[in-house]
Amino acid sequence: MKILLIGASGTVGQAVYQELAHDHEIITAGPNQADLKVDISDPASIKQLFENAGKIDAVISTTGQVHFAPLSDMNHENYQIGLDSKLMGQINLVLIGQHYLNDGGSFTLISGIINHDPIPAGSAAATVNGALDSFVLAASTELPRGLRVNIVSPTMLEEAVEKYGPAFKGYKPVPGKDVALAFRKSVDGLQTGRVFKVGY
Amino acid sequence: MKILLIGASGTVGQAVYQELAHDHEIITAGPNQADLKVDISDPASIKQLFENAGKIDAVISTTGQVHFAPLSDMNHENYQIGLDSKLMGQINLVLIGQHYLNDGGSFTLISGIINHDPIPAGSAAATVNGALDSFVLAASTELPRGLRVNIVSPTMLEEAVEKYGPAFKGYKPVPGKDVALAFRKSVDGLQTGRVFKVGY
Repeated sequence: MKILLIGASGTVGQAVYQELAHDHEIITAGPNQADLKVDISDPASIKQLFENAGKIDAVISTTGQVHFAPLSDMNHENYQIGLDSKLMGQINLVLIGQHYLNDGGSFTLISGIINHDPIPAGSAAATVNGALDSFVLAASTELPRGLRVNIVSPTMLEEAVEKYGPAFKGYKPVPGKDVALAFRKSVDGLQTGRVFKVGY
Repeated sequence: MKILLIGASGTVGQAVYQELAHDHEIITAGPNQADLKVDISDPASIKQLFENAGKIDAVISTTGQVHFAPLSDMNHENYQIGLDSKLMGQINLVLIGQHYLNDGGSFTLISGIINHDPIPAGSAAATVNGALDSFVLAASTELPRGLRVNIVSPTMLEEAVEKYGPAFKGYKPVPGKDVALAFRKSVDGLQTGRVFKVGY
């Protein structure tokens, strides 16, 4: 299978690459250090990405920015960061990519535990994750040509404890390879419209 | 209690007004036909609304626009309509309103069944509703001064069957007064961070 992996340089992206590279052809995409360049917050850049990638069977996204701050300090602009990047960046991968993927292809996006189990300063992340989980359920019912869409919602990764541990106090971390398995389940399986929770 | 009701002219808003007007003081707000003028898609307009409303105990929102279209026709701009209006309009009521409400006050927002039970052409609505349900859970943990936030998620209203029935085929409608009761439960009760589903 030919897979376009957006966010391969991140912690989840690296684990997904390790899991899938030995039996799939992977094209990486990102703002830098990738086979193809893309800024997911820009729909024109996403369209160009699909033009450059050629015919592909699966899109995996393990990327997206969100602003973290206490609710009392949050404003519209802070929220818009996550709406433009992690939310619409990933939704636009599907809206635009649906016109490019091979029949029976799949999209696998990423959300996260925070909309089920919120952390301090995480209201924008919870909002974006909840939006993505719901988008996947709805979009799966409308995709044409046997296209599928799922989302992986992990808790904090073991590999990210040093960076995110202080924000996720009391959350049991999960190995990145377990998160990568959920992406494999989505890509190599037949399910659609599913939120694959990992580690919670 | 002094309640600011945004969207009083809509089907849900009218039912809420009927339910609450006899034992609460209600100030209505909307783009027109209301005590106070507001465009919820504009944060500056929301700030001005709270300046004009004076000290209040509860904010109820029964409003917000979302674009409906088949997924294959949807683009970024179509989604942005719902993100600016129903999503960020209501989130900004909380982000801005948290600095104005009396101690112990409440916000009650509106989402809808579509993120749990999607309809054709409803992917943007599902996305926005899922975002709002998750926002409420997260924001409730961070609000100061005993402030609360809940959301009411109704199925189609009986009063709206003529307009929305063709979009919600097979969905059992619920009387507007049942939806209004959920808003009363939120305003007059003590719960916070809850999604009150009505009719499903």
